[in-house]
Amino acid sequence: MTDATDANHESHVTLEQIQAVTGGVLTGTPNVAPTRLLDPAHPAYRQAAAQAVVVLAPGAEPPEPAPALLVVAEKHELAADYGGAHLRVADPRLALARLSKLYDAQPLPREHQGAAVAVHPTATLEEGVVLAPGAVVDAGAHVGRNSVVGANSVVGAGVRLGAECVLHPNVTLYPATVLGDRVIIHAGAVIGADGFGYASGPRGAEKIYHSGGVVLGDDVEVGANTAIDRGTLLPTRVGARTKIDNHCQIGHNVTIGSDSLLAGMTAVAGSAVIGSGVIMGGNVAVSDHVSVGDGARIAGRAGITKDVPAGATWAGFPARPHRAFVRELYLLGKLEQIWQAVKPQRGGEGSE
Amino acid sequence: MTDATDANHESHVTLEQIQAVTGGVLTGTPNVAPTRLLDPAHPAYRQAAAQAVVVLAPGAEPPEPAPALLVVAEKHELAADYGGAHLRVADPRLALARLSKLYDAQPLPREHQGAAVAVHPTATLEEGVVLAPGAVVDAGAHVGRNSVVGANSVVGAGVRLGAECVLHPNVTLYPATVLGDRVIIHAGAVIGADGFGYASGPRGAEKIYHSGGVVLGDDVEVGANTAIDRGTLLPTRVGARTKIDNHCQIGHNVTIGSDSLLAGMTAVAGSAVIGSGVIMGGNVAVSDHVSVGDGARIAGRAGITKDVPAGATWAGFPARPHRAFVRELYLLGKLEQIWQAVKPQRGGEGSE
Amino acid sequence: MTDATDANHESHVTLEQIQAVTGGVLTGTPNVAPTRLLDPAHPAYRQAAAQAVVVLAPGAEPPEPAPALLVVAEKHELAADYGGAHLRVADPRLALARLSKLYDAQPLPREHQGAAVAVHPTATLEEGVVLAPGAVVDAGAHVGRNSVVGANSVVGAGVRLGAECVLHPNVTLYPATVLGDRVIIHAGAVIGADGFGYASGPRGAEKIYHSGGVVLGDDVEVGANTAIDRGTLLPTRVGARTKIDNHCQIGHNVTIGSDSLLAGMTAVAGSAVIGSGVIMGGNVAVSDHVSVGDGARIAGRAGITKDVPAGATWAGFPARPHRAFVRELYLLGKLEQIWQAVKPQRGGEGSE
Repeated sequence: MTDATDANHESHVTLEQIQAVTGGVLTGTPNVAPTRLLDPAHPAYRQAAAQAVVVLAPGAEPPEPAPALLVVAEKHELAADYGGAHLRVADPRLALARLSKLYDAQPLPREHQGAAVAVHPTATLEEGVVLAPGAVVDAGAHVGRNSVVGANSVVGAGVRLGAECVLHPNVTLYPATVLGDRVIIHAGAVIGADGFGYASGPRGAEKIYHSGGVVLGDDVEVGANTAIDRGTLLPTRVGARTKIDNHCQIGHNVTIGSDSLLAGMTAVAGSAVIGSGVIMGGNVAVSDHVSVGDGARIAGRAGITKDVPAGATWAGFPARPHRAFVRELYLLGKLEQIWQAVKPQRGGEGSE
Repeated sequence: MTDATDANHESHVTLEQIQAVTGGVLTGTPNVAPTRLLDPAHPAYRQAAAQAVVVLAPGAEPPEPAPALLVVAEKHELAADYGGAHLRVADPRLALARLSKLYDAQPLPREHQGAAVAVHPTATLEEGVVLAPGAVVDAGAHVGRNSVVGANSVVGAGVRLGAECVLHPNVTLYPATVLGDRVIIHAGAVIGADGFGYASGPRGAEKIYHSGGVVLGDDVEVGANTAIDRGTLLPTRVGARTKIDNHCQIGHNVTIGSDSLLAGMTAVAGSAVIGSGVIMGGNVAVSDHVSVGDGARIAGRAGITKDVPAGATWAGFPARPHRAFVRELYLLGKLEQIWQAVKPQRGGEGSE
Repeated sequence: MTDATDANHESHVTLEQIQAVTGGVLTGTPNVAPTRLLDPAHPAYRQAAAQAVVVLAPGAEPPEPAPALLVVAEKHELAADYGGAHLRVADPRLALARLSKLYDAQPLPREHQGAAVAVHPTATLEEGVVLAPGAVVDAGAHVGRNSVVGANSVVGAGVRLGAECVLHPNVTLYPATVLGDRVIIHAGAVIGADGFGYASGPRGAEKIYHSGGVVLGDDVEVGANTAIDRGTLLPTRVGARTKIDNHCQIGHNVTIGSDSLLAGMTAVAGSAVIGSGVIMGGNVAVSDHVSVGDGARIAGRAGITKDVPAGATWAGFPARPHRAFVRELYLLGKLEQIWQAVKPQRGGEGSE
């Protein structure tokens, strides 16, 4: 097998574009406009350095040989004889995001000439819509301008997509799902499945049929194999610019504000309310009906069982303020010492 | 973007139907049979109240304006001048389930005229089967009466579906899967993938090929992106009326009884035995080969590492009786006090 | 519903094959070469025993009636009058793996004559490639000899599959994914979705476009609905013969060595480094940028927050050496006693 992934190929990017998107200050001029955004650890780096732009992570050593263009933090001190041109930026990570977009060459899902797609006669597609092979758009659905429906993805009846959305392959949007503009849904994600709601009846659990749907705001991104359930009678909502990683489970009737980040394998149970600007580490669980205030930060693997105030940093299970969590860990580390210290009181139990 | 989901649309439901399914006692008569089941917080509520039925959650305030029909618990006291008609029911949640079914207008996956489906010549479909676009039914499979295979869902070779099953889109049923009647499988779920079983061989892990299949009983519901692995030589089994939420992982050779509820992101490792009438909160993990007795209740995020007796309520990790878990949390809250109390014995360590 | 799964059907396997793959020593000769590999608990066992081979698990009782061929550990003592032929093997579990392969009759995804598939004109398929209905192979992709693309699975642009790979149904391989030989990807798995990387910009999170791709080594197996994200500028890597169970989440830039086993619902955050020969129980979480040394063993549900040395056995959250974890559990069980013991120092708080 070859080890090469063909993603890091050459792009036609101009120096003016690089300066425009990064707002950086240039020292020296590269011989050529860099054609590749490379990590110095890439096997092709030594050969390609003279055509490469490298964004130096804070604290990292500048690579040898020097790339055509090194992007560094404003205050980073480079050796006087370090080669190549340098671009000074306020925030290297933001520069990386901007450059990664400039150099991006990942093909989006595309149409294949003659391939089967299934668009219901009552569905409407605005101009520029791309339907990859096997895409299904059901009755009454509406797909906005330039949106892409990935291969074998399914847009349910009556679903509405805004403009420039991207559904990667094998996505399912159930009926009563509404997407804003520029929403990205990764492969295998399921939006709008029935919430897990039952009533106890005389012959077992009786299903509560959910009609509330799901509403995702503009610029939301949903990770691979994530599921967001429809609400019971009101929609489950995710606010603009919120990003949800892979393998998350968002229960019915949940509301998530805007500009929040939920890392992978996080589960938010039904009717929980997550504010705006919240950051959750991976593998967090949130109990049903609790709220997490705006700007709260939740450590990875926390289990939220009661309301978290706005701006707070919580951790652990059951989750509590991070400071209390750290103190408890410290005290748990003293348990042995405590156990020995209370030995006289507990009677001679020997040397356990 | 519009914010409206088109699910809450008008339905033709008669007052007789409402009374029949809820068994409620009517006080007054609505001007019209309610056409919508609404939550009072729905943006359309004020305009639509005169055509709406509202199920009042226990403890909630009756909405203003009054709906055409308010469904309330028998003992709920309404103000004497509260408007509209009222339906008194023993269990409002059960009434909600029944009414939600009556008003349900979610379209199931449907056929598109002329859309490609792939049915192997040796597969058999009973009358009324619906194959949405991209559905695949492999050799020797059998799909029972009125069952629905969602768009791009795959029914593997030799699989058997009972009557009135619904596979939502992008579902995969591996060969040797057997579904009872009225089984619902949500989008992205995978039933019957190989169990995670290997033997250690001279050149690394050697795969154990699983032939046991999966058997799901009548009225089982499986959530989006959940996976249930096939057994090694005997089937993995899920009993009738058991409901498994999204993002659950059910390992090979597991047996789950009937009428159990497993909430989202729960993982049951291989060969575990879960009884009937068990209720598990979200994000529970069950170790391999342990058993959870009938009627046990497991708190969210518990990690079961040993057998749970029938009827017990357990919590925590490693899971133990809920009472012991709560007591431990209480004592952990006293650690600081304990640490200070043993200070004389531990010598002058200062004020940590 | 019928309860039978049609997997355990008869196979034509010779005694010579059985001896060859197991290396076992035969005592007696079965009347017939066994046609079925059965578990004695299988409902068909009593009728089929005379045609069955049974692998006796260590500690289990030999079944009655005796099968045509019983495979047992070398040292296992059988009653002198126990019937049938016996095959003595060094490792019954390894024998089970070998026999399960010999008797395996699970049909792989297959082509249906005339069914729609979508292969881009610039894609290349080596001889023997099988494309099940709805399979999509995008521009420039390459599928190696005898590989199988399951129904409704999607091979993204430029993806490379080695020989004899199996993609089960509804799999998604994003562009810049490279698979070695004999890689198995189970249904619903997503390889190569964008990593969860954003920079904080003036108008919210800005996406970092990932070009690093994913490289999976020879003989890797990936479970159902698992997701492995692409790297930022360098590939996410999984080494040869590593097996990843269902519902795992492998973040961007992660490196996993060879011959490791990750059980279900395990999450590895971005840029973590997992060594070779590592065994992880289910539901483990690994923080970003930490490393787990070669040969480490991680207990189920552990949460790794710092580097784990090679060969170590860790458990708990935050994870620590297993011995320390067990001691802490012991001491936590003494908290009540400790609390009572310090009562004099804490003043008369009564009988809590």
